[in-house]
Amino acid sequence: MDLHERILAANDGAARHNREHFDEHGVLAVNLMGSPGSGKTALLEATAHASADYGFKLAALSGDLATDHDGERLRAAGIPAATITTGSACHLDAAMVHRALHDLNWRNGNMLFIENVGNLVCPAIYDLGQAANIVALAVTEGEDKPLKYPVMFRAADLVLLTKVDLLPHLPDVSVASIEDALGRVMPNPRLIVVSARTGQGMQEWMSWLKKKLPSLGSPAIVA
Amino acid sequence: MDLHERILAANDGAARHNREHFDEHGVLAVNLMGSPGSGKTALLEATAHASADYGFKLAALSGDLATDHDGERLRAAGIPAATITTGSACHLDAAMVHRALHDLNWRNGNMLFIENVGNLVCPAIYDLGQAANIVALAVTEGEDKPLKYPVMFRAADLVLLTKVDLLPHLPDVSVASIEDALGRVMPNPRLIVVSARTGQGMQEWMSWLKKKLPSLGSPAIVA
Repeated sequence: MDLHERILAANDGAARHNREHFDEHGVLAVNLMGSPGSGKTALLEATAHASADYGFKLAALSGDLATDHDGERLRAAGIPAATITTGSACHLDAAMVHRALHDLNWRNGNMLFIENVGNLVCPAIYDLGQAANIVALAVTEGEDKPLKYPVMFRAADLVLLTKVDLLPHLPDVSVASIEDALGRVMPNPRLIVVSARTGQGMQEWMSWLKKKLPSLGSPAIVA
Repeated sequence: MDLHERILAANDGAARHNREHFDEHGVLAVNLMGSPGSGKTALLEATAHASADYGFKLAALSGDLATDHDGERLRAAGIPAATITTGSACHLDAAMVHRALHDLNWRNGNMLFIENVGNLVCPAIYDLGQAANIVALAVTEGEDKPLKYPVMFRAADLVLLTKVDLLPHLPDVSVASIEDALGRVMPNPRLIVVSARTGQGMQEWMSWLKKKLPSLGSPAIVA
């Protein structure tokens, strides 16, 4: 086993431990990934504003190289949130998440969002103990990203195509082409088209989450 | 010296070797970095179209996890280009660049663009032998990216703020705020506002490059 394999094996052990915690407390853990500026935090803000109607009680961990900006935005939106500062590390790992859980009142809720470092490569490789992987992809990033960053999209349970309010100003981008690219890399292609600004697609996104909730939805999560 | 330091030390040796090659042939090597979808390839296409007027003779290496899409686009724009396929690696290193140089007719030109893997973290840490680090930051990524990804912006000689034709549709983004954020992290803040679509800022960008050219401009490059 080489060094990289040893690191991943140790991470998998820590992720299993996190997953047991989440299952034990009936909390749906979601790993939210995407490029810098793909709209992850804005999506969580919009999710927070709609969550009471769906019976969601959220908490969040936010990974960042520097600053607590996203954590501040999430707390302002009413989500208990702690920041994981990674320095120069380009992804979260399961041990970082485990340590940060001690600083957060997540057991009282039913949903934990782990907002990963903005990066379309490495975060996909490190299991954090989540029940679902979500990738936020902004329409402004262009049509070919699923084919160029297949590792991330192969691991995704759902892709949220964000900032779709900008589509009328992007003559070179079509949703159909993005769907076609996702169909080539995702084992079970699933796309929801959203805009945190206009609210488009939020109902579909919230319904997707509700079905995943262990305590409220069906079918039950199998970890 | 730990493992990471040993990897970086080996990379620095290979980068020095690349730099000697570039200097010997009077070629300006530029490391072009930025998030996925920040407009790196579109910028190089626009640069290629304007290059004859400035006496630039370009070649390019393009780093990608998968696909030769960017290489194809660059060759279609008239730039001799080779692709470095990284698999799951989230950045280029100096040895990858050195190997790829054998597949490319770069010695006949005076400028080599190395388009790095789309990632706002790791590429900044690996010297490739370049004379200049350029970061493409799309206005659609939001105002706070320099503060959240300081490692990348600290290493930048120039930031190109791309896709500025979309600014009228982004009520939450101002160029002044981005300039302010860059001023907090870049040792010598330098920003050029461009749009590959409308041509805005291209003249300023081409003039910046021309000043860096060892054979044409002044002051001379000191590697």
